Amino acid sequence: MRERELITLLREIFKPSDRLANELRVGIGDDAAVFAPGKSLVATSTDVLTEGVHFNRTWSDAKTIGRKAAIANLADIFAMGMRPNFLLVSATIENFDDGTLLEIAQGIQLEVERVGAQVIGGDLSSGQGLTLSITSFGEGDRSVRRSDAKPGDDLYLTRLPGRSLLGLTQLNKGIRINPESVNFHLIPECDWATFEKAGEIATAMIDISDGVAKDGLEIAQASGVCLEIESELLFEHPDFPPVAKLASELGLEALETILSSGEEHTPLFTASPSDRSLVESFAHRVGGVTGDRAGEILLDGAPLKVEGFDHFS
Amino acid sequence: MRERELITLLREIFKPSDRLANELRVGIGDDAAVFAPGKSLVATSTDVLTEGVHFNRTWSDAKTIGRKAAIANLADIFAMGMRPNFLLVSATIENFDDGTLLEIAQGIQLEVERVGAQVIGGDLSSGQGLTLSITSFGEGDRSVRRSDAKPGDDLYLTRLPGRSLLGLTQLNKGIRINPESVNFHLIPECDWATFEKAGEIATAMIDISDGVAKDGLEIAQASGVCLEIESELLFEHPDFPPVAKLASELGLEALETILSSGEEHTPLFTASPSDRSLVESFAHRVGGVTGDRAGEILLDGAPLKVEGFDHFS
Repeated sequence: MRERELITLLREIFKPSDRLANELRVGIGDDAAVFAPGKSLVATSTDVLTEGVHFNRTWSDAKTIGRKAAIANLADIFAMGMRPNFLLVSATIENFDDGTLLEIAQGIQLEVERVGAQVIGGDLSSGQGLTLSITSFGEGDRSVRRSDAKPGDDLYLTRLPGRSLLGLTQLNKGIRINPESVNFHLIPECDWATFEKAGEIATAMIDISDGVAKDGLEIAQASGVCLEIESELLFEHPDFPPVAKLASELGLEALETILSSGEEHTPLFTASPSDRSLVESFAHRVGGVTGDRAGEILLDGAPLKVEGFDHFS
Repeated sequence: MRERELITLLREIFKPSDRLANELRVGIGDDAAVFAPGKSLVATSTDVLTEGVHFNRTWSDAKTIGRKAAIANLADIFAMGMRPNFLLVSATIENFDDGTLLEIAQGIQLEVERVGAQVIGGDLSSGQGLTLSITSFGEGDRSVRRSDAKPGDDLYLTRLPGRSLLGLTQLNKGIRINPESVNFHLIPECDWATFEKAGEIATAMIDISDGVAKDGLEIAQASGVCLEIESELLFEHPDFPPVAKLASELGLEALETILSSGEEHTPLFTASPSDRSLVESFAHRVGGVTGDRAGEILLDGAPLKVEGFDHFS
């Protein structure tokens, strides 16, 4: 069963509560869920990371694992256009290894402090392998959903994706011709200030965790629109030359690398054309939104093969 | 390293954020953390359950595992005197088994619906063994902490603990002389209405997950008081005769069973003596709070051996 079908079944099981209909603003199926206790909005998102699936202890030390896990979770809150405040951290560790746990905690704290947030609880248990679960809570005046892209909107990236896949490819091959991209795969450091700027102006937004093609399809389907990416606009991105060069050295196709690289934790978002001059001060237009072919993502007019990073197998 | 020491170290790593000092009401170390977005209070608590530690698939079907996990998590919110509204559910499953996952979800939903709450998100991953992680969010006008018991308060139980340990003992021995307690160990069904009543009046409260002795010590230490339990008051509890009889049949000592049985998910709480007649309409006084011997829990004046269920090993 594919993840999407399974989530559909889970949505049927986890029925909405009539009592909470007014308070729930965003339920299952976005970067984070959002509810409104009183007048404020609270976003919450949880990630589970397991050894061998999300990280490899021969590649990453414990502190690095903690940093990456925190970044991935914080990105979900920024992707709702909200600010992360509090986090819960849980872990299960085989043959309970306190040293490893404390190093993971230090890595998490390093990233949490960078955004001025705070870990306020969690749970610890022994268990098979190492599993890390992080839940974050964000607050804000509005939330940016996946489902509000409008025909006529522009489509933007800030940083050009690709480095994570280029780093992973080197790790898989046991080579290290570009340490910067290897390090980026292990710790995808984010420009949160730019992520926040995108959140202030975006009509729809998603955190790139599974790749532009896959995550863009989420926006297209949730909004009932078509996302059209133009390769020429990607070529004009200042990061394109180094990404293309390294892809070529590793035997990868540049555009495919850019559009399928996961765990990038940079925003893909849409914005009104009336905001173009403002948005172009910190982001790069890579295409637009149309009303035809709703639910599709196209590259130069042809359907984009949706391949990406899938943690679910 | 004991869990307590480890949590102390984690508290040092996970530093408070100055920015959030006004908003955070209860941090690490209570049943749930509480923050205040706007004017309302939000409680949040997370539990991780792993196969072989918290449940045993030869004893429990998947739906039962889901029910028990949900109950344990909801109890943490009720133990703050607050009402659970929303939940996040995450799971890692080896050789991803969709059927098992959906049955777990159905079990969770059954318990979630009972309290009028709603699952609003989560995360799925493959991983070693089965790990389930549930985070719940509660709301309320005030939160009841562990740390506010005052000398002179009364100490109360609602239901008498014991059945969970009696059920577990039968499961471990491969016998089933009392199916009701076996079922209770597998699905510790709660009287949430009574839990809520306790929350409205308690000065300090804890969910009994590790046993009265261990959880009572948490109140004693957090409040800087001594909890004094009187065995005569326990003997007068209407549930005492059946619990004592079954304990004897299983070769267990009755008082030890009552005071060490974990996963009970019933409140242990303190209340002002001025509320005694009101509280005694739904709860049983089992002792009191004194200012001497702060941080201790006594049974008939003697230090209580603190043994209990420990998920952390």
